[in-house]
Parts: sequence; C-alpha cells; structure tokens
Amino acid sequence: MSGRPLDVLEASLEDPVTVHLKDGTTYYGVLAGYDQHMNVVIEPESGVNDRVDDDLDGEFAVAIEDTTIIRGDNVVSIKA
Amino acid sequence: MSGRPLDVLEASLEDPVTVHLKDGTTYYGVLAGYDQHMNVVIEPESGVNDRVDDDLDGEFAVAIEDTTIIRGDNVVSIKA
Amino acid sequence: MSGRPLDVLEASLEDPVTVHLKDGTTYYGVLAGYDQHMNVVIEPESGVNDRVDDDLDGEFAVAIEDTTIIRGDNVVSIKA
Amino acid sequence: MSGRPLDVLEASLEDPVTVHLKDGTTYYGVLAGYDQHMNVVIEPESGVNDRVDDDLDGEFAVAIEDTTIIRGDNVVSIKA
Amino acid sequence: MSGRPLDVLEASLEDPVTVHLKDGTTYYGVLAGYDQHMNVVIEPESGVNDRVDDDLDGEFAVAIEDTTIIRGDNVVSIKA
Amino acid sequence: MSGRPLDVLEASLEDPVTVHLKDGTTYYGVLAGYDQHMNVVIEPESGVNDRVDDDLDGEFAVAIEDTTIIRGDNVVSIKA
Amino acid sequence: MSGRPLDVLEASLEDPVTVHLKDGTTYYGVLAGYDQHMNVVIEPESGVNDRVDDDLDGEFAVAIEDTTIIRGDNVVSIKA
Repeated sequence: MSGRPLDVLEASLEDPVTVHLKDGTTYYGVLAGYDQHMNVVIEPESGVNDRVDDDLDGEFAVAIEDTTIIRGDNVVSIKA
Repeated sequence: MSGRPLDVLEASLEDPVTVHLKDGTTYYGVLAGYDQHMNVVIEPESGVNDRVDDDLDGEFAVAIEDTTIIRGDNVVSIKA
Repeated sequence: MSGRPLDVLEASLEDPVTVHLKDGTTYYGVLAGYDQHMNVVIEPESGVNDRVDDDLDGEFAVAIEDTTIIRGDNVVSIKA
Repeated sequence: MSGRPLDVLEASLEDPVTVHLKDGTTYYGVLAGYDQHMNVVIEPESGVNDRVDDDLDGEFAVAIEDTTIIRGDNVVSIKA
Repeated sequence: MSGRPLDVLEASLEDPVTVHLKDGTTYYGVLAGYDQHMNVVIEPESGVNDRVDDDLDGEFAVAIEDTTIIRGDNVVSIKA
Repeated sequence: MSGRPLDVLEASLEDPVTVHLKDGTTYYGVLAGYDQHMNVVIEPESGVNDRVDDDLDGEFAVAIEDTTIIRGDNVVSIKA
Repeated sequence: MSGRPLDVLEASLEDPVTVHLKDGTTYYGVLAGYDQHMNVVIEPESGVNDRVDDDLDGEFAVAIEDTTIIRGDNVVSIKA
C-alpha cells in the first residue's frame, strides 16, 4: 500500500481509515472519496456503532455516524 | 452519497447539513450552494426555529436564521 | 437568494449584510462590492447611526461609519 | 466610492486611509499605492504629526511617519 | 544525499526518515512516497516495534505502526 | 517614493529599511534584494554596529550583522 | 552576496547557514539545496559536532547532525 500520497488514498477507497485533525480530534470511518487537496469523505462503517479506538498517541478515534466531508487543510495525517 | 467531496456537496443541495467551523461553532441549515473552495451557502430549514441539535462531540449546532455564506477556509467538516 | 456563494453576494449588492470576522468582530453595513476572494466593501446604511444589532450568537454587530474594505481571508460568514 | 474592493483602493489613491491589521495595530496615512494582494503603501499626511485618531473600536490609529509598505495578508480592513 | 529538497526525498525512498510536525510530534518510519507539496507516506520499519528514538531536541520520535499519510503543511522538517 | 508596493521596494534598493515581522522582531539593514513574494535580503549598513533604533511602537529595531534573507510571509511592514 | 533572495541562496550553496524557524528553533548547517518555496536542505558541517552558536537574539543555533529538509513555510530568516 505504498506509493505517492494520493495513490495511497486511491488504494484505500472503501477501506476504514483514521483521520487525525489539527484540532486534536480523530475520526474513524470508511474512505468514500477524496480530491487533490486531501479533502476526504468518510462514511460510517456498517456494523460499527460508537466504536472508539485507541489511537497511537493515547487519543481516541471517534467513529463517524454520518457521511462527513473533512476539508483537507485540517488534516494532519490519515492512517490507511 | 459517497464520492469525491464536491460530488457529495452537489448531491446534498437542498438537504439539511451540519457545518462545523474552526472557531468551534456548528451551524445547521439547508445547503443552498457551494463552490470549489468549499465556500457554502446555507439557508434556514422551513419549519425549524431555533433548533438546537446535539452534535456528535457534545457541541451544539445552531440553526441559522438567515441565508448565510460561510467562507470555506473556516470549515472543518460538513455532515451531509 | 440561494445559489453559489458569489451569486448570493451579487444578489445582495446594495442590501444590508452582517459580516462576521475571525477576530470576533461583526460589521453591519450595505454591501457595495466584492471580488472572487470574498474581499468585500461595505458602506454605512443611510439613516442608521451607531446601530447595534443583536447577533445570533449574542455578539454585537457594529454598524460601520465609513466605506470599509474587508480582506476576504478575515471573513467567517456573511449574512445576506 | 462604492464598487469592487480594488476599485475602491484605486479611487482612494492620495486620500487618507485607516488600515487595521491582524496584530491589532491601526495605521493612518495617505494611500500611495496598492497591488492585487492588497499590499499597500501609505505615506505621512503632510501637516499631520503624531496624529492619533479615535478608531471605531476604541483603538488608536497611529499616524505613520515614513513611507511604509504593509503586506496584504496582515490587513483586516481599510477605511477609505 | 545533497541536492534540492524533492531530490533528497526521492533519494530517501525506502529509507527510514524522521518527520517533525508543527504540533510537536515526531514520527519515525520508512519513506514510501511523497509529492510536490511534501505530503509524505511513511510505513512501519519491518522488525521495529514501538521503537522510540531520542530526537535531537530531546523529543521522542514515535515509530508509526500503520501506513500513514502526513499532509505536507504540517511538516517542519524531515531527517533523511 | 510612492507607487505600487514592489515599485517602492525597487526604489529602496541600497537604502536602509526597517522590516517589522509577525513575531514582533524588527530588523534594520540595507535592502539588497527582494522578489514578488516580498521575500527580502537585507545587509549590514557599513559603519553601523549594533545600532538600535527606536521604532514607532516603542519596539527596538535590531541592526542585522550578516546578509539575511527574510521570508515574505513573516513580514508585517517595511519602512522605506 | 547581495541580490534577489533565491540568488543569495544559490550563492550560499555549500556554505554554512543559520536557519531561524517560526517555532523559535534555529538550525546551523551547510546549505545543500533549496527550491523556489524556500524549502531548504542542510547538512552537518564536517568537523563540527554539537556546535552551539550564539544567535543575535540570544537564542542558540543547533548544529544539525543529519541531512535535514526544512519546509519553507516554517522559515523566518536565513543568514547566509
């Protein structure tokens, strides 16, 4: 799953991802879309409700409950 | 309702959306327009006055009362 | 008054608008001009002196007293 | 003196302007030049020394004493 | 390993790198990809689990555990 | 010395300038070069050592001691 | 060593430089490369270990120990 950043996003479509934002929040969901600005669309993972994952830094990832567009300039990192 | 971010916005026209801003405020209204910078126009939902929704993060979403343009660089996320 | 953000600004020319800035200040005046960066020009509303409006968030809108150019990157939202 | 933002600046050349910056300072001087980024050049007003104006927000405007270039990304607003 | 910044990234592909971010965190992993915005993809180094390196500034570098895309505008420096 | 911002910089080449930065520091030196981003090069003024000028705002201007490139996005203002 | 900012960087290749960043850190090393965004590559100076220079502002410059890419938008100034 290596390659250029947008290639990795392309390869991650329909897979669960963890999106870490500059405001400290971390979202968990299925990657439904993206664009060249790293704006992303994530959707709830079917069968997963209120899932809270342990993040690497001891922060919690919030499982999103609605289709959510995240503007790319808020993104710190995306774990594919 | 999946796809690239602007496709999701296009599909959400005339639907209620929740717009979360960098300053911590969250607006609720009907998506009336958008552009490629993710500038958005939201309008009051007819029949909804002073509605206050519980947001996922325990924040409150303020139902907008006037046609409002939000400049895209303030946007963190949009729930479609 | 729906449509794309710049269309809404175009339709609002010569109408009073409320401009909310990132520094927390809110200006009230007549929209005299704008450009594609959402730089705007607002002018005093004739017959309105020192008007102070209640803003949705409990903040006060300051009625501008001179023709004022506001640089777009300071704008959070514009109520048309 | 209405119109698009850069038209208002063009019309204000050689007129005194008040430039309010993001760091809270406000400068007063004669508009000597500008460009499309809203970078501006202001010059001392002849006959005005150390003038301190009351600004709308209770802040003081400092009369500039030397030809000064202000980089546009610092500008909040310009009163023409 | 000198040269222009993107040439150094190209030469560092498949090598371990330390990426220092604006939020103070530092990640350690193998450089799997990059683009012209300095968006980077780093992957876990095989055989390295939970490695914590001493950083030059006394900060700790966290060995990443999943393929991670880091958006370039968060990057302060990359040690190749 | 009026005109568009870059014209004023062009006219100021080889003249002493005071450069005020967003981090509050102010540098004094001879303008040796600039570009369209308002990146500037300043050099020590011959015969001036450790000169400390009173700045308009009561801040001190530090006379630079080495040829120094200042990246334009840090610049608030340049006094020509 | 005067001229436009990128000309000064070009002339400084293979020379020691001091790079002052927005987060307050200052790095010392040999300039190995740069690009038009003022992204720079610095390398350890041979024979210099753990050198700590007094910076003009009383800050310390850290001699880098590995080839380091610094993203240009973090740079305040570069002393050539």
